[in-house]
Amino acid sequence: MALEPSVPLYIDINMSDLTKILLDESELPTAWYNIVPDLPTPPPPPLHPGTHQPIGPDDLAPLFPMALIEQEVSAERYIDIPEEVREVYKLWRPSPLYRARRLEKALGTPARIYYKYEGVSPAGSHKPNTAVPQAYYNAQAGVKRITTETGAGQWGSAMSFACAQFGLELEVWQVAASFTQKPYRGSMIRTWGATIHSSPSDLTEAGRAILASYPDSPGSLGIAISEAVEMAVKDEDTKYALGSVLNHVLLHQTVIGEEALKQFAKVGDTPDVIVGCTGGGSNFAGLTFPFLREKLGGSINPRVIAVEPAACPSLTKGEYRYDFGDTAGMTPLVKMHTLGHDFVPDPIHAGGLRYHGMSPLISHMYEEDLFEAEAIGQVECFEAAVQFARTEGIVPAPEPSHALAGTIREALKAKEDGEERVILTALCGHGHFDMAAYDAYFSSELHDYDYPEAKIADAMSRVPVIDG
Amino acid sequence: MALEPSVPLYIDINMSDLTKILLDESELPTAWYNIVPDLPTPPPPPLHPGTHQPIGPDDLAPLFPMALIEQEVSAERYIDIPEEVREVYKLWRPSPLYRARRLEKALGTPARIYYKYEGVSPAGSHKPNTAVPQAYYNAQAGVKRITTETGAGQWGSAMSFACAQFGLELEVWQVAASFTQKPYRGSMIRTWGATIHSSPSDLTEAGRAILASYPDSPGSLGIAISEAVEMAVKDEDTKYALGSVLNHVLLHQTVIGEEALKQFAKVGDTPDVIVGCTGGGSNFAGLTFPFLREKLGGSINPRVIAVEPAACPSLTKGEYRYDFGDTAGMTPLVKMHTLGHDFVPDPIHAGGLRYHGMSPLISHMYEEDLFEAEAIGQVECFEAAVQFARTEGIVPAPEPSHALAGTIREALKAKEDGEERVILTALCGHGHFDMAAYDAYFSSELHDYDYPEAKIADAMSRVPVIDG
Repeated sequence: MALEPSVPLYIDINMSDLTKILLDESELPTAWYNIVPDLPTPPPPPLHPGTHQPIGPDDLAPLFPMALIEQEVSAERYIDIPEEVREVYKLWRPSPLYRARRLEKALGTPARIYYKYEGVSPAGSHKPNTAVPQAYYNAQAGVKRITTETGAGQWGSAMSFACAQFGLELEVWQVAASFTQKPYRGSMIRTWGATIHSSPSDLTEAGRAILASYPDSPGSLGIAISEAVEMAVKDEDTKYALGSVLNHVLLHQTVIGEEALKQFAKVGDTPDVIVGCTGGGSNFAGLTFPFLREKLGGSINPRVIAVEPAACPSLTKGEYRYDFGDTAGMTPLVKMHTLGHDFVPDPIHAGGLRYHGMSPLISHMYEEDLFEAEAIGQVECFEAAVQFARTEGIVPAPEPSHALAGTIREALKAKEDGEERVILTALCGHGHFDMAAYDAYFSSELHDYDYPEAKIADAMSRVPVIDG
Repeated sequence: MALEPSVPLYIDINMSDLTKILLDESELPTAWYNIVPDLPTPPPPPLHPGTHQPIGPDDLAPLFPMALIEQEVSAERYIDIPEEVREVYKLWRPSPLYRARRLEKALGTPARIYYKYEGVSPAGSHKPNTAVPQAYYNAQAGVKRITTETGAGQWGSAMSFACAQFGLELEVWQVAASFTQKPYRGSMIRTWGATIHSSPSDLTEAGRAILASYPDSPGSLGIAISEAVEMAVKDEDTKYALGSVLNHVLLHQTVIGEEALKQFAKVGDTPDVIVGCTGGGSNFAGLTFPFLREKLGGSINPRVIAVEPAACPSLTKGEYRYDFGDTAGMTPLVKMHTLGHDFVPDPIHAGGLRYHGMSPLISHMYEEDLFEAEAIGQVECFEAAVQFARTEGIVPAPEPSHALAGTIREALKAKEDGEERVILTALCGHGHFDMAAYDAYFSSELHDYDYPEAKIADAMSRVPVIDG
């Protein structure tokens, strides 16, 4: 089976020996891919939290510039990447596709394993793929300042890098516990010129209300979102930015999969299995949507697998229902796989995979059986990460260690079956700011948590009941 | 003036618009370049510390495998890179050459600035360029275990990555102060499978002797070297590895400059000024030696500038004399620019530039006027690093911030002179494990130290007096 549509197919024999499959800057994609018009049925609309009626573009206007709102609801299959965004992408893109020869050998598998590496970005993950266009469209719209939240700091640092490129001010509210425990992402955010606040802060009504009751609050992503949104809404020159979950964020990430398609065409190979990790879902979408386009078009037929943490199993254990995107229940209601908007997952090290819900678009596609999902405990994930580091060199972030654990499972299945399967995975970031998690692993302080059934049931009891 | 010798020259017009100039894996150099036979006069030999007679290969045999000793004294201009080493290099090499368009714009300079980025290696610096062949030649010689020392941890992590690739055990002695204050390089070292000890340790006679007198000793690179050497000497299956200073280390690093020559040929440009930072000198040598070959051959004529910290100014303020390579005076005597073997520099953040001496080969070349040197204080270096991060994206390590400060000085001179100069610099690593230094900068706790004249005079008074 070979790739054809939208990809110039040529096979260079020498290329099959490569470790890294690179593209020239001239091969950087010129458009993002919007999967929505290609789906069998459209995803359900977001609803106004008060009226339970579908929301329109105007409801989002206080938060986002119109160009991003248009992308959020677009029915176009392709959206051109502005030249200014492509120029910044070129600081690290096209990103390399690696053939994991050393990992294959260590596993003794007949599978050919490829990984698309996004840790080459200045911020060290896939997040700048959307941070850069978000900063660009805001700058184009005359916005002066952006607010956002961050947990461990991946998103905040990506956004501060992007804002430096377009001369925008940025204020980041970071969850207090991370602000204290992981100070170096904050140092990076300051290096790129942004301001960082510990959340809850005394700068917002939302923050002050919480501090009044809990002066030592460790904060939460939900609280940080409330603070960033409040600051954006009350100032006309200020907008808000979100790093995952929304359609336009997923759209921007498709540059990953578009590049990977071209890279596979170069080596004349086609993935049989694609494995990504899912938190909010943006990296998974970025890698897989272009391949799912080809699958829907009938030219290839890979199995696609989303791997999530056993401690936060929104796809495999959550219900597909309308729920709030934030803890406090201030956002629109979106139909998604949810564990309940006030579900607090156990403190696993993959901070980026601790969201209570799943992107509505990905949730809808899961209902349409476009991909599979599995949940894996963090000990198996760190075992995979260490094996990967010792063979392939790169030390992975805790989030993609889930994708690596899923990949190793598939590679060992291929060995059992004696089949030459081709596996593609996404290494969405390096672990340079996550070494404390590795320390925990080596000192045997890392453990799996029980399946949080009772906690999920409790949180789900507070999810609003919506008709339709 | 155009490049020709040993470089296929072709100019692709489109290439002049590139942000990154990449090479294919097929363009990875096949040989390292040994500059010694091309020098007007040979460098003075190392001397035995007892007899003051030139040492021979046998004196080094307890420490290094014979293949590396042969490289240390080789008179061959080119030494083939073994295929096994090239295969591991391909995990990150050829490394990108960037055109710093955004920095140029911010400076308003007519200069074209290029930087060769070595932070793409798994360990995040240029160090794996020599760690990989050192591990390879040891494995070939049947060595089972390697010992080494590390300060802040760059070299220890590079060596642990390399040993994982060739199935060698590695034990790293890390200076106690860094072991405690910068734990995450140690986490990385463990992730790649090596063992790390705080130095002084109770595992060696050298360590126990120091602990007996100073139980809370913060350690020093000199002590750590003594411990690693002691362990290597007393076990036949164990050898020792050094990350800079020696000829074979500089040799391995020339892969950087060989690639850069090819990359310049691709864009049809030629550097007028080349700026690198110097600690032990290996990154500076790696970038500049192939260009100095072309300069000695008369085809190009760049100015070459070594930038060192004002707090540890071995080239600009040191004397060119025979001295010990370590603090305790256990190594052979080598003729080099030295501040005195027991000189302890002020605690600047560029840990990799705090060595008391300079590579003997580079010292000899400095005496032959093959390049210039200047010393810059760390505040100017961090200003340069922050300006670089906000324009080019990458957050630099404190060591190459010295090269960046020198580059910015040259770019501003070009502006003053109204001249279109081409500047090449080496960004030898990222700063992901050095963010505490940026915190110090932003909290105004970073300051320059006075020129350490009295300390240097004191240390120099204990340098042995050798005839010849």
